[in-house]
Amino acid sequence: MCTMKIYGDVLSGNCQKVRFVADHLRLPYTWVPVDTLKGESRTPDYLAKFPQGQVPAIEAGNGRFLAQSNAIMRYLARGSRLLPDDSWAQAKIDEWLFWEQYSHEPYIAVCRFHMLYQHKPKEAREAWRVERGEKALNLMESELGGRDWLAASSFTIADIALFAYTRLAPEGGFDLQSRPNLRVWVARCENVLGLAPNPNVIASR
Amino acid sequence: MCTMKIYGDVLSGNCQKVRFVADHLRLPYTWVPVDTLKGESRTPDYLAKFPQGQVPAIEAGNGRFLAQSNAIMRYLARGSRLLPDDSWAQAKIDEWLFWEQYSHEPYIAVCRFHMLYQHKPKEAREAWRVERGEKALNLMESELGGRDWLAASSFTIADIALFAYTRLAPEGGFDLQSRPNLRVWVARCENVLGLAPNPNVIASR
Repeated sequence: MCTMKIYGDVLSGNCQKVRFVADHLRLPYTWVPVDTLKGESRTPDYLAKFPQGQVPAIEAGNGRFLAQSNAIMRYLARGSRLLPDDSWAQAKIDEWLFWEQYSHEPYIAVCRFHMLYQHKPKEAREAWRVERGEKALNLMESELGGRDWLAASSFTIADIALFAYTRLAPEGGFDLQSRPNLRVWVARCENVLGLAPNPNVIASR
Repeated sequence: MCTMKIYGDVLSGNCQKVRFVADHLRLPYTWVPVDTLKGESRTPDYLAKFPQGQVPAIEAGNGRFLAQSNAIMRYLARGSRLLPDDSWAQAKIDEWLFWEQYSHEPYIAVCRFHMLYQHKPKEAREAWRVERGEKALNLMESELGGRDWLAASSFTIADIALFAYTRLAPEGGFDLQSRPNLRVWVARCENVLGLAPNPNVIASR
């Protein structure tokens, strides 16, 4: 049995999600760095394994290849406490996973990409992305009022999916200062995952 | 036991996905029309049930509310032939579901929205969305070479997820004429779902 390979970029929130799940569940893996800015996710070799040309992706052994951060998390977490087996609990987790990829990541992660990877100033962010990113953070702030975790009574992959880029949102010019529920939830996730607090979030605490 | 309610817009591909699954599995439901253009998904009443303010959404009885088309499909299809229980089969289905919401819908469905709902001419489409939409259709065309279904050896919710807006892509100014694998697969899906062929797709056959 081969050890799983995770192809990823350590700075990418989407890639961090997969690492958080693997580390939390103590799944053995080899991390294979992929520099997307240098085109390493678009080589013929990479595309033969992962036609979508994206990171993160995993090689699970026996020629089995899988891309899409949330699909990978779901696969790795199956049968664990991070993904309770109850059908309604899974439905509410899935609701957050799909919302994250459609209504959170394209705004918050993309603004961060422009600032962190492309070195654009905060003022150069696209107004429509900023507006939708703010709206996404406001929805989370509201939903986290009075409860500890997003989708269930315990920590699940829904929390990991949203935590990854929410924690890094200040690097995309988004403020967590004015959102106390989010700040406490980020700290709660960091604690469960055994992570040092993110300096950007501390700065805005 | 209350009959499930599906809140949706019959012209929306995302809403059609949920209807296709419910009809195919012969699940009883009441269709509740929601006109998003008139703000009916943003009323206090609707937001109290579905804070994300989106369609489709379902009321599954006992005060249980769920949004996100792909999360709903996954919930309704659990235990059926549309979602085989094997963990790797589910992972490959999930890979397509998340790809659909990130790399297909925001380009093809949004261009269609601009043309069909906002009555903009084809020439007014945003170039970057058109480019990514074409890329998504090219990937599907390539992946469907030599196989009948997207994610498994049988028809699954991955096919339904991608079928919904691919079938309607000509309404967003995208051409299926030059993509024979896609055309045949669309017809195959229509056949399984018992749908009349879409006139736009026939026109480009």
